[in-house]
Amino acid sequence: MNVVIIGASGYSGAELASLVAKHPKLILTGCYVSQGSLDKNKLLSDLYPEHLGLLDQPLLPLSESAFSDIENSADYVCLCTDHKVSVDLAPRFLAMGKKVFDLSGGYRLASNDDYVTYYGFEHQHPELLNQAAYGLAEWNSDAIAAAQLVAVAGCYPTAALNALKPLQQADLLTEQTIIINAVSGVTGAGRKASIGTHFCEVSLAPYGLFNHRHGPEIEQHLGHNVLFTPHLGNFPRGILETIYVQLKPNVTIEQVTQAYQVLADEPLIRLLGDKIPSIKGVAKQPYVDIGWQQQGTQLIVIAAIDNLLKGAAGQALQCINLSMGLAHTTGLKGSF
Amino acid sequence: MNVVIIGASGYSGAELASLVAKHPKLILTGCYVSQGSLDKNKLLSDLYPEHLGLLDQPLLPLSESAFSDIENSADYVCLCTDHKVSVDLAPRFLAMGKKVFDLSGGYRLASNDDYVTYYGFEHQHPELLNQAAYGLAEWNSDAIAAAQLVAVAGCYPTAALNALKPLQQADLLTEQTIIINAVSGVTGAGRKASIGTHFCEVSLAPYGLFNHRHGPEIEQHLGHNVLFTPHLGNFPRGILETIYVQLKPNVTIEQVTQAYQVLADEPLIRLLGDKIPSIKGVAKQPYVDIGWQQQGTQLIVIAAIDNLLKGAAGQALQCINLSMGLAHTTGLKGSF
Amino acid sequence: MNVVIIGASGYSGAELASLVAKHPKLILTGCYVSQGSLDKNKLLSDLYPEHLGLLDQPLLPLSESAFSDIENSADYVCLCTDHKVSVDLAPRFLAMGKKVFDLSGGYRLASNDDYVTYYGFEHQHPELLNQAAYGLAEWNSDAIAAAQLVAVAGCYPTAALNALKPLQQADLLTEQTIIINAVSGVTGAGRKASIGTHFCEVSLAPYGLFNHRHGPEIEQHLGHNVLFTPHLGNFPRGILETIYVQLKPNVTIEQVTQAYQVLADEPLIRLLGDKIPSIKGVAKQPYVDIGWQQQGTQLIVIAAIDNLLKGAAGQALQCINLSMGLAHTTGLKGSF
Amino acid sequence: MNVVIIGASGYSGAELASLVAKHPKLILTGCYVSQGSLDKNKLLSDLYPEHLGLLDQPLLPLSESAFSDIENSADYVCLCTDHKVSVDLAPRFLAMGKKVFDLSGGYRLASNDDYVTYYGFEHQHPELLNQAAYGLAEWNSDAIAAAQLVAVAGCYPTAALNALKPLQQADLLTEQTIIINAVSGVTGAGRKASIGTHFCEVSLAPYGLFNHRHGPEIEQHLGHNVLFTPHLGNFPRGILETIYVQLKPNVTIEQVTQAYQVLADEPLIRLLGDKIPSIKGVAKQPYVDIGWQQQGTQLIVIAAIDNLLKGAAGQALQCINLSMGLAHTTGLKGSF
Repeated sequence: MNVVIIGASGYSGAELASLVAKHPKLILTGCYVSQGSLDKNKLLSDLYPEHLGLLDQPLLPLSESAFSDIENSADYVCLCTDHKVSVDLAPRFLAMGKKVFDLSGGYRLASNDDYVTYYGFEHQHPELLNQAAYGLAEWNSDAIAAAQLVAVAGCYPTAALNALKPLQQADLLTEQTIIINAVSGVTGAGRKASIGTHFCEVSLAPYGLFNHRHGPEIEQHLGHNVLFTPHLGNFPRGILETIYVQLKPNVTIEQVTQAYQVLADEPLIRLLGDKIPSIKGVAKQPYVDIGWQQQGTQLIVIAAIDNLLKGAAGQALQCINLSMGLAHTTGLKGSF
Repeated sequence: MNVVIIGASGYSGAELASLVAKHPKLILTGCYVSQGSLDKNKLLSDLYPEHLGLLDQPLLPLSESAFSDIENSADYVCLCTDHKVSVDLAPRFLAMGKKVFDLSGGYRLASNDDYVTYYGFEHQHPELLNQAAYGLAEWNSDAIAAAQLVAVAGCYPTAALNALKPLQQADLLTEQTIIINAVSGVTGAGRKASIGTHFCEVSLAPYGLFNHRHGPEIEQHLGHNVLFTPHLGNFPRGILETIYVQLKPNVTIEQVTQAYQVLADEPLIRLLGDKIPSIKGVAKQPYVDIGWQQQGTQLIVIAAIDNLLKGAAGQALQCINLSMGLAHTTGLKGSF
Repeated sequence: MNVVIIGASGYSGAELASLVAKHPKLILTGCYVSQGSLDKNKLLSDLYPEHLGLLDQPLLPLSESAFSDIENSADYVCLCTDHKVSVDLAPRFLAMGKKVFDLSGGYRLASNDDYVTYYGFEHQHPELLNQAAYGLAEWNSDAIAAAQLVAVAGCYPTAALNALKPLQQADLLTEQTIIINAVSGVTGAGRKASIGTHFCEVSLAPYGLFNHRHGPEIEQHLGHNVLFTPHLGNFPRGILETIYVQLKPNVTIEQVTQAYQVLADEPLIRLLGDKIPSIKGVAKQPYVDIGWQQQGTQLIVIAAIDNLLKGAAGQALQCINLSMGLAHTTGLKGSF
Repeated sequence: MNVVIIGASGYSGAELASLVAKHPKLILTGCYVSQGSLDKNKLLSDLYPEHLGLLDQPLLPLSESAFSDIENSADYVCLCTDHKVSVDLAPRFLAMGKKVFDLSGGYRLASNDDYVTYYGFEHQHPELLNQAAYGLAEWNSDAIAAAQLVAVAGCYPTAALNALKPLQQADLLTEQTIIINAVSGVTGAGRKASIGTHFCEVSLAPYGLFNHRHGPEIEQHLGHNVLFTPHLGNFPRGILETIYVQLKPNVTIEQVTQAYQVLADEPLIRLLGDKIPSIKGVAKQPYVDIGWQQQGTQLIVIAAIDNLLKGAAGQALQCINLSMGLAHTTGLKGSF
């Protein structure tokens, strides 16, 4: 299958490009950036010297002729673009009959109202919102396999939902708001130069209190109130979430452990039991690591992912694998 | 006044030595390590090359003759030793009539039972526990000034208590357990070589779930239940605590802000209001930074300190200043 | 004395502002940025939260009325501006009768030709080049004290010249080109957001091979050929230079050590002998650390500084101290 | 082929274990540690949580029965042990008829005298020194393929020799000593807990001036004098070498570039021409990156590798591939 990536110059786009280039059943047909991008016509390996020899493709401007080329050549279109750009591009590629995998938040929430509230713009294609399959691979594989448009799950929600859906499904949760304290590496803030990502300015601190977009994304796909507080941390890749859960009375650790067995056979989930996940354990790895400890009705769940892999490009590739009827892990496991 | 430091080779001890050496009213009379220490007779500046010229004192072994020297020369004895060692040493120096400032946890909790439960040893001098003033400088200054034995507050509790006592005092809190998600830099783990502090092994991860000693320390000095979860992070100095508080119904942000005014005149507290503290803002600084944001009855308080300064040596010096009737800030503010 | 800082928002400017604010004999009268700066009218402590309480001054735009204010209020003007801006501003402030301390490279080289070759612009005030005292404090103190215009030495040259001038003066060097392998922390690249200083892009690598401006600066002020190769490294502050020197035949280590005694009484130089300087030893310290080891006629000298202190703001303050007849160390030693 | 790894708990050993486990033609039969190791009987993935699921083998003690097991099961024995241990173990496994790949320095130098001088011990099996093939894969492939004992090249020498042998072979070098300024990440210092590798103590600084073992290793395998100065840097993986070479008069950049063409077809060498290698470009990559710039007769060559891959485990696997008649890149390229 031929894959094109729009927005290939960013961290998620380039990570996905490297995965596609190494995948046994995919061909990386084209890498595109916006027509105004300063990286236009550079080689991807000029931006990412680690990929010299692997990603020596030019970053093509997404001109009108580029759309024609994509129409003629691509099977799958991956959008690693800003939310609003994705909203606009997806219908155009869907109209060409392409399968579209959107790594932005443009198609993850339920309604236009959500976009007005949490993203600050009117959604131009609200009719597509319920056609888009939510790309949380372990929980929605049939819909992903069947969909023309996959809204690949956000980085923070991927960790949180895999940590919490087993408990929800097993009916172990009280109504109390779940507190999710999350820390992301700096690639999560994107590759664009800014004072906030300057080497000498990055420092552990929370941001987006009470209003980060991934809060409602988690709530909608979990069906439970959460208080989600992201932090930026002093490391390049990875997300660690420390999650504080109130269990129903008399729930035992055995019941909790049993609840997680729903994920036991998933090859990209690693259940650590009472061992504690860390950023080190998941950086450059395609997994979600989940550990948990309990005291009384208080449960602490720790979930960790690489934000660019399971939190973005890795899960996008997993969704592509599902579309093709391949194993979840093709091109992912054993590749790092 | 003449100051000796026991356990001067560790991070807190050396930090305190540098503060004392630069203090206008103190003389650093002696720096001691255990008789078995490998650093014995080295210069402190051999271990800390940044202090070459300032701390060229030898690290003397704490032999019997050393005790005599201390008896003859010192006014103040600072214990930067392990908890159990501090428990044993404090009475000996008190018996000499010295003022003792203990930076360990040896005299911070209320009863022998607490030590058995949280520290794993029988306290050999439980009668001293209620004579020791808890060295949380802004909240206990009279007792600190008067005490012969000061149990300098722990690093994590210093941030947490300054963030929460104003709310407690203003009666804004419900009974609900307060969640304290804390991240410390690696100096917090001590200078001893261990695989856990190896440059290539450090990685953001929680530890001590449900059983860290600073949990009960916070609870006893706050008078409120907390769930305290420490993490080790990828940076050398600093603590950031993200604290999740349930306010009583109808408490307004003005009431919260008003509650914090109790600290408004404290020169080593910086109230940031709705601005967000960070590790960068406090590293190598003597302050506690406190910020807060509210939504409904949910309050998030963020507190940050340098674990070696306000979380250890800085606060110890502040306590010494109080003992001497000096300003809180002497030798602290403007020195970094 | 009243000090104003032009370009106070950058790393060197803010560092100098903090030093001036803590200095016992100086008053920080004004902090200025260019009229087009995005930081205009922000507080300096908004940009540098660590300095909250110390640097709550606004960053004033350098308008025409600002020039009047400076004329009326300032004694000393410190230029922490781009080279070309400094070239233009210095004469204007000199004409007001101010003493000017320029932290840029605008007045460090000998002739207009040098500026055309190494800086890429025609120098608009070449007549001032030989009036400017080169602000290498330990080697040029009389001229600095007397000068109206001080061209504070560059960061890399400060380390290199203090390491090499003693050997040159003692006539121990052959004609062979001296190789200076230098690594700087990221503050050396400035505070401006750029992809090169992005947290995830910084990586140890050389830059400016054969053509960095500090090469000729070193050569002119040393009087010896050097091959200077700077690198950017993965740390915020500090410069380490590993310098490869060919000694004349039969020069002994005693002669080398003797040569360095010319610096033995300088309070901001630390001679380590055969001990090895490191970034850790000088970060946030006002010193140059110098160590050396010899084998046959091959000498390796290692020099380390904090690029923002001895390499910029610290040395600028040292020059101001010399102008005022104060000790080199006033406001510097014991302040970190 | 069945592979056992002795010393699998260290960074090189574990890296090699992960490569073998993912290799299409190799089976990881056993992972061993010394009988006194504290890691004995732990799972390799307990030490390296990133490899959970891949490396869940126990770390077996190298007891007498272990030798029997190895004799019965293994084809290839990889020694990731200390130099002296490797010297002792290699003959024992050779006597069993195994192919031995030694990642230590135990068989890299020419004579017992070299070991006395540079390693501080008498070599117990000097007769094997000239039977051992030097495992610098691109330059010695026939000998490696044929040998029973391969002394895999050291990390620093791998970068230096690939950077310099082309120039030597093309006869472009003068007699003048080549200066190699090298910086290694902290994995190069091993996994053993020590104050030198403590997160808060690591800092850019040189070490081993004039006497590091890799100096003579480079000289013997290059046939040219070098002054080799290693540094430890603030990053986990990678080596960057900045190499200062004096070319013969009138050598042109075209001749230099032509000289490097000897490596142009090597799949694990990336020739960057006048682009500059960096640590970022090679970390977690199996390549040597080489770039160069010239001015007059002065050439600067920059070489970068991942010390654990091309500098240790990657090159060991490359040597194993050569032994098996596989492509250099099997199990290496496209795996990261």
